[in-house]
Amino acid sequence: MRLSPEDMQKFFNPQSIAFIGVSRSGGRFGGMSFFSKYIEAGYAGRLYPINPKADRILGIKAWPDLAGLPEKPDLAMIAVAAAQVPEVIVACARKGIHHFHLLTAGFDELGNAAGEALKQRLVSVCRAHNVLLIGPNCMGPYRPAARLTAWGAIPGRPGPLGIISQSGGMTQRLTEYAASLGLGVEKAVSVGNGSVLDALDFLEAFGQDPAIKVIGMYLESVADGRRLLDLSRRIGQDKPIILIKGGETEVGARTAASHTGAMAGSRAIWEAMIRQANMIHVRTMDEWLDALMTFARVAQPASDGVFIIGGGGGSSVIYGDTCVREGLQVPALSPQSMDELLRITPAAGSIAGNPLDHWQVFSDTAYLARLVDMAEQDPAVSIILVDRLIARNAFHMQDTPDPTPETIALLKQRKGVKPIVFVVDSEGGDPELAAQGAAMRAAFSEAGYAVFPGIARAAAALRRLGRYYGKRSRMPASQPGIHPERL
Amino acid sequence: MRLSPEDMQKFFNPQSIAFIGVSRSGGRFGGMSFFSKYIEAGYAGRLYPINPKADRILGIKAWPDLAGLPEKPDLAMIAVAAAQVPEVIVACARKGIHHFHLLTAGFDELGNAAGEALKQRLVSVCRAHNVLLIGPNCMGPYRPAARLTAWGAIPGRPGPLGIISQSGGMTQRLTEYAASLGLGVEKAVSVGNGSVLDALDFLEAFGQDPAIKVIGMYLESVADGRRLLDLSRRIGQDKPIILIKGGETEVGARTAASHTGAMAGSRAIWEAMIRQANMIHVRTMDEWLDALMTFARVAQPASDGVFIIGGGGGSSVIYGDTCVREGLQVPALSPQSMDELLRITPAAGSIAGNPLDHWQVFSDTAYLARLVDMAEQDPAVSIILVDRLIARNAFHMQDTPDPTPETIALLKQRKGVKPIVFVVDSEGGDPELAAQGAAMRAAFSEAGYAVFPGIARAAAALRRLGRYYGKRSRMPASQPGIHPERL
Repeated sequence: MRLSPEDMQKFFNPQSIAFIGVSRSGGRFGGMSFFSKYIEAGYAGRLYPINPKADRILGIKAWPDLAGLPEKPDLAMIAVAAAQVPEVIVACARKGIHHFHLLTAGFDELGNAAGEALKQRLVSVCRAHNVLLIGPNCMGPYRPAARLTAWGAIPGRPGPLGIISQSGGMTQRLTEYAASLGLGVEKAVSVGNGSVLDALDFLEAFGQDPAIKVIGMYLESVADGRRLLDLSRRIGQDKPIILIKGGETEVGARTAASHTGAMAGSRAIWEAMIRQANMIHVRTMDEWLDALMTFARVAQPASDGVFIIGGGGGSSVIYGDTCVREGLQVPALSPQSMDELLRITPAAGSIAGNPLDHWQVFSDTAYLARLVDMAEQDPAVSIILVDRLIARNAFHMQDTPDPTPETIALLKQRKGVKPIVFVVDSEGGDPELAAQGAAMRAAFSEAGYAVFPGIARAAAALRRLGRYYGKRSRMPASQPGIHPERL
Repeated sequence: MRLSPEDMQKFFNPQSIAFIGVSRSGGRFGGMSFFSKYIEAGYAGRLYPINPKADRILGIKAWPDLAGLPEKPDLAMIAVAAAQVPEVIVACARKGIHHFHLLTAGFDELGNAAGEALKQRLVSVCRAHNVLLIGPNCMGPYRPAARLTAWGAIPGRPGPLGIISQSGGMTQRLTEYAASLGLGVEKAVSVGNGSVLDALDFLEAFGQDPAIKVIGMYLESVADGRRLLDLSRRIGQDKPIILIKGGETEVGARTAASHTGAMAGSRAIWEAMIRQANMIHVRTMDEWLDALMTFARVAQPASDGVFIIGGGGGSSVIYGDTCVREGLQVPALSPQSMDELLRITPAAGSIAGNPLDHWQVFSDTAYLARLVDMAEQDPAVSIILVDRLIARNAFHMQDTPDPTPETIALLKQRKGVKPIVFVVDSEGGDPELAAQGAAMRAAFSEAGYAVFPGIARAAAALRRLGRYYGKRSRMPASQPGIHPERL
């Protein structure tokens, strides 16, 4: 189904919202919880909670029914019991409401005849009244710029991401995670069972949305594999699409069927489809976030040659091994670079080369900036990867001040164009160290850099970046042999 | 070279230590830094800093030379410049000192003739005077029980681990990481270039050490591949040996050569050797820690059948997929279990099955304990994996109290034998969330449970556990076709 710009306005920039199924008291789920989040986020439109037993809910005037509303709301959010949903939609449609978010679960994902019948009735009612519906069994639309944020980070951050998901929880977590790193979301939508509008309808719309630069999708199934292939090839040329396919294994597929009623499809067909589509395939939340951040922030590098700047012999060995294993290059530096490195790096206890092992990089911003300038001139280097160490007792660094603000200020002044990414490891069970690491990651990320909590994740994300730009240039118009309609 | 119990006492439980090369002022490296850490850690033996220009160093009486010392120290720690090392060793040997930790770098790892010559002289001097030396270019011995902790977590934690490493930095980081999780170290040793005593000498000694239950090794090279194979087969039968092999790739090998003078050896030969040896192969710091923790804490499971207890449909799908992809089983539960689950799990918004998706597990300890008791009775389940969610705003949980203390108390009372492991994800750039996650991981870990910051890491560690116990029972006496002496 094609969503018009007006439809997208109604869903993601509504001027007024009716809430049907808002109880007077709270709870972690349900209409009341969502309603309270709109208020907390500072939604500036008009809210109409419908509840015949309440005068006010959270200080907002409540209405006994739709009939008395002073206007036709742009959007209706429905959280009544499943059996009541069709009649509520009819009542709303009669009021002239055409856009719905249906939170309620209890449809085809139940896997029984009653659930399936209720779903069919829901779809029939929507068709008969020509209304558009997100859901059922989902968290619906999210847009920080409109303070339309019923879930995830509150109030969230506007930014370049568009997220489409068959899992509310994954989307909540992702938007929270991204916001904590200063990485913003233009629009996100949790489509649940996708009975009326599905993930691909939003993929098509996000493809035409100039504010969305990178698209993340969590899919358990699609009704029309050919459409996914076609959309991804077209949209993926300009906007990287990062896909998690839930239900790759039999266990995951069994769970997906109970989750959103998804028929997860054969792993072999999905894998063939993803190869021919123009999508970046990831498998966990961490990989999803890492890829979204990398594609949003790291420009196409000229090659996959990485210069690794860090300290510690063993970690330099492991960092080099890890990058090469992931398919990146860690090239020998140019003679000019090596001349300079040998001049400024002590012979004993350090390693002048790539990786560079010299502890001074952790504390001396001017030294680090000199290395970055050197790398900018080195034709073997296209990506600069800087390891950061939190001042820590284990490394006899407890009194070392954190150079991060100075580092960011100096690097921001440089004229270079080669991307710089950062690794900040703060793993373990030490809350203070963990907090310091999170704050350091946030600082680099707020400054616009891609930052990772470990080398393996950095290398995997950079490898995906290189593969995407390599594959994009070779993307064929079509290929025989797969049957995506069977997805 | 075989280390006697007396030698191990001198290195890891010395009653007195001479420090040669301790300046009067500090610095992050060098003798002074190490000396200060012994004091900070509360080392109870006698310390003899040797410095002709100082009366006292950090409040400890300094001695102008070895001659005046009131006793023969058990151990000498040497941090003088490389060129002076041989004569200092001779002077110490004449005083009757036979055990040395040589911190100083600048030997064969320089990759030049002068460094190689100095190494040869060092080895000759040690042989001529029949002394045992750890180093050069290393952090030496570490033993929290003796407060012999010059690096890493201060004062550290005694525990079941034995760590042998060619990287001081990796060992510092690992001991810090483990200590933050309440996972203790019996002995650790950073052997650096291993010119006199090497990693395998300590492997043999750790194999005979009853206090060491699990061994971690970071190796860049070994002089005698056959010995590693033989030792690992013998020791690995009773004590899991977790190995990181640094320098697997050409880039890593090049770096390793500059780091410890290591000839890292062919990746193919190493891989063949590891397959035939009895070692668990990991590749990053995170995998190393995860495996050490898992082998130290999780008893041999009867099968690789995991019951995943969590909340969130999408994350249940991904958790199931991830475990299966890693080679674990996520079996259907028994009819008895399913009867019970269906009784206590709502039909809409939850999934009764394996994985179990029900948000109540995050807040209701009694419910969680009931699930664990159910799993204990279910023959399909051998490992219980419990996902924990930090109370977070994104999930409308900001007012939910943390049930961790209650959870631990209740689980500790149970009579079951099936291992329980935990996943606590707190990724991102939110310092408060990161600190909460680290504290929760520490709490479970302090209680003796294996705990992981993500499902992929948990699944990988559990898969390694299963493979080790499976492989151990099939370990052949010998196998033709590899030439480990060429390592």
